[in-house]
Amino acid sequence: MATQASGTKDLKKKRVGGGARPRADLPAQDEYSTEFNKHGQKLGEKGRRTREALTNAARQLLRESSPLDLSAVAISRQAEVSSASFYMYFNSVRDMLYQMNEAISEEIAELVPFLTRKWDDEDPAADALKFVKKFQEIWSQHREVLMFRNMEADLGNPQFDKLWRATLRPLVARIGDKIKEQAQTKGKFISVLDSRSRAVVLTSALERIAACDVRVINEELGMDRVQNSLADMIVKAIYCVE
Amino acid sequence: MATQASGTKDLKKKRVGGGARPRADLPAQDEYSTEFNKHGQKLGEKGRRTREALTNAARQLLRESSPLDLSAVAISRQAEVSSASFYMYFNSVRDMLYQMNEAISEEIAELVPFLTRKWDDEDPAADALKFVKKFQEIWSQHREVLMFRNMEADLGNPQFDKLWRATLRPLVARIGDKIKEQAQTKGKFISVLDSRSRAVVLTSALERIAACDVRVINEELGMDRVQNSLADMIVKAIYCVE
Repeated sequence: MATQASGTKDLKKKRVGGGARPRADLPAQDEYSTEFNKHGQKLGEKGRRTREALTNAARQLLRESSPLDLSAVAISRQAEVSSASFYMYFNSVRDMLYQMNEAISEEIAELVPFLTRKWDDEDPAADALKFVKKFQEIWSQHREVLMFRNMEADLGNPQFDKLWRATLRPLVARIGDKIKEQAQTKGKFISVLDSRSRAVVLTSALERIAACDVRVINEELGMDRVQNSLADMIVKAIYCVE
Repeated sequence: MATQASGTKDLKKKRVGGGARPRADLPAQDEYSTEFNKHGQKLGEKGRRTREALTNAARQLLRESSPLDLSAVAISRQAEVSSASFYMYFNSVRDMLYQMNEAISEEIAELVPFLTRKWDDEDPAADALKFVKKFQEIWSQHREVLMFRNMEADLGNPQFDKLWRATLRPLVARIGDKIKEQAQTKGKFISVLDSRSRAVVLTSALERIAACDVRVINEELGMDRVQNSLADMIVKAIYCVE
């Protein structure tokens, strides 16, 4: 039965040494394309629409229920297409979510200019806040899909892990550069690894807060306050040199 | 079939307004007990052993595979007991993981003294590091179970959300107190909400890093370095008053 490919019932396959299963159901990197289906046919207008209906259906299901409940059958039913159609575009639910995350990584790359531009020394918190808001905006648009990426990465799925690291690395490097530069300005030396390690603490706070239910943050402290605290923390990491 | 109760196949039940399903399969708060089974019988030595075999089996499965693959049948098989035995102790897989997380919350409460004791003004980073190490130690012992808690909380499951907030709240309050106190020492005022909001940024960084695969952190930057950066960030949040 086609649902088996979703991998939700296959208890015998274990993740050993970082995950055996994902290697089996995800194709090699260069096989990916949103331009071609799994038979190598170039997508026409109809193909693109069907593929989009499927990814939209997956987003909808992830918003309404848990990733534990996601299957190719459920996604196809929601998109009102056949399961066979699903497998024209994706090898599995994981494959689909990987492709969706690849597209989101391109949006995350648009955060880099927020970090490479020179920040206002008089009010760096204002520049930090712009970065924080843009980061949270991308997450709020793709929250469930990004949560799936992080869960898979954290559980040792090598493809998702690689994608997560590759996506965060430019942000960590640019924040690390700012930390290093400001230390130098004040006559202090900080190693590249130490500056990146401090940057990772900041991106970790950003990711954890972005994964939280917005309703909960608003009930407890308010999103504006938390975003300002994130910006404050980034500024302290860069400008408080002991 | 008994597996249905694990909730992994029930695609029709949707989480609306913060999750309808969990209310159905989790008993009222005061029903919980590790002293009694679901028939109200007090656990004897054999009952305690069976219950422990089941929770150990769940931990084992979560370490080896994904929460997407967890079911009452799989856990019972791993523990070498019948599925009927599983339902003597737990209403569902979620119920089991909720009970496991309740027990872990008591361990997390042991972090409070690390924050209430006075920190060495000459070297607060040493005290902050002790807290960071203890926090990460608890997470590394229960990582998969705590990741499940956070995933359920983030997806709007009200019981897990409540447990997560109740567990973190004392830590956030104590870190907030330190931030507020230090600001006062330097003649600055910071509101309780602002100080707690900054504390949340810190616990968020701690949680996100604790959820990461340790192998990945060691490959990228090294756990010691990242723990020191977390301690450094906590110290900056408390002691850098602008």
